Amino acid sequence: MIFKQLFETETSTYSYLLGCERTQRAILIDPVASELDDYIDLLNSLNLKLIYTLETHVHADHITGSGLLRQKLGSKSVVHRDAGAMCADLLVTDGVPLQVGDLELEVRHTPGHTNGCVSYVMADRVFTGDALLIGGSGRTDFQQGDAGQLYDSITGKLFTLPPDTLVYPGHDYNGNTVSTIKQEMAKNTRLGGGKSREEFIAILQDLKLAYPKFIDKALPANQSCGLIAQG
Amino acid sequence: MIFKQLFETETSTYSYLLGCERTQRAILIDPVASELDDYIDLLNSLNLKLIYTLETHVHADHITGSGLLRQKLGSKSVVHRDAGAMCADLLVTDGVPLQVGDLELEVRHTPGHTNGCVSYVMADRVFTGDALLIGGSGRTDFQQGDAGQLYDSITGKLFTLPPDTLVYPGHDYNGNTVSTIKQEMAKNTRLGGGKSREEFIAILQDLKLAYPKFIDKALPANQSCGLIAQG
Repeated sequence: MIFKQLFETETSTYSYLLGCERTQRAILIDPVASELDDYIDLLNSLNLKLIYTLETHVHADHITGSGLLRQKLGSKSVVHRDAGAMCADLLVTDGVPLQVGDLELEVRHTPGHTNGCVSYVMADRVFTGDALLIGGSGRTDFQQGDAGQLYDSITGKLFTLPPDTLVYPGHDYNGNTVSTIKQEMAKNTRLGGGKSREEFIAILQDLKLAYPKFIDKALPANQSCGLIAQG
Repeated sequence: MIFKQLFETETSTYSYLLGCERTQRAILIDPVASELDDYIDLLNSLNLKLIYTLETHVHADHITGSGLLRQKLGSKSVVHRDAGAMCADLLVTDGVPLQVGDLELEVRHTPGHTNGCVSYVMADRVFTGDALLIGGSGRTDFQQGDAGQLYDSITGKLFTLPPDTLVYPGHDYNGNTVSTIKQEMAKNTRLGGGKSREEFIAILQDLKLAYPKFIDKALPANQSCGLIAQG
């Protein structure tokens, strides 16, 4: 299997390329529009055909490359049905299995950062988007965010994975690339060490974060798979 | 590959079991609720795990087994997003590839009998639901039916398949089990031999069929994946 963690520096966004060498088919998780040419070069150099792009959610800080990749490569876009991105080709729900070649993933609905957030579990690893970050979590003060719901998602849907499961998040602002479920259960500053739901909610409420500078442009664009409506 | 054509006699409905022997995983196309026990026995006897149930559309004449199979076996239900069956787990659109083990199918949106009708193409065969029947077609006088649209679907999305593609329909009332695209293009009584769109529409308009006796019960049930709403 081919596995690459890709980093977009302007918004500190992680995307992931998963490739099945036997069938030469690939998945991209959370592609960023500005990196389109790099993705195509990478896929070509590895002789991979892109089948699906998987969105963990509708992003507020960057524009998805899913629509452009569909136009260029014919790939199909996957998102949770609650995300409000009717531009997508497959709308999924909790527990749905997806397969591309020998790559097998399972959708886990992990709302709270947004109501349409999912994580994708693949064998020994999980792609958590902006639900669970390394040492932290997504914020919950916009896009139907709900701190209590995010606590329930992380503790109920992610912390129940095997402890050694590798955690690959949608962002990191501190140079971290990977963690484990065990490590987050112990050390995450917002819910590690057995912090309660009430403590988590209080921490999220006290963050006092600035309004995301790009959100008013990014949300409508991402609900159109990153393609600006014509006309 | 395991391949079985299953027949429900009361409504002359065909369902299809597709099994991947390598991975012991299976798909059921258009399962019928009344046949649930038979499906489970068959899957068990073949040592297959049911991953997806695929609906070609929301049926008016029988009740889908997709919801019961989900409850019993954990399978996930697939339907076109326009079908109005929000009970389903995956909502798909035209061109989406689906894979279970070594089974690979592609969704083709073939509306006209209903607006949410799809056919599923797998290698040398296509499952046409009630769009293209052997020697005939689905009716178009209810459920957003549109004869012109059905003509466009069959000629544009099915008759463009390789001529030797096997046609497996959702029903047959005359004992036919299988046909080919070439045969339907030549012999289909409604659109074979190069019949025009206008001729097809006129034929459909002149059918004067009775109102389906089961439709008022079947439609709401099937929009709930065959599960009657509780409470």
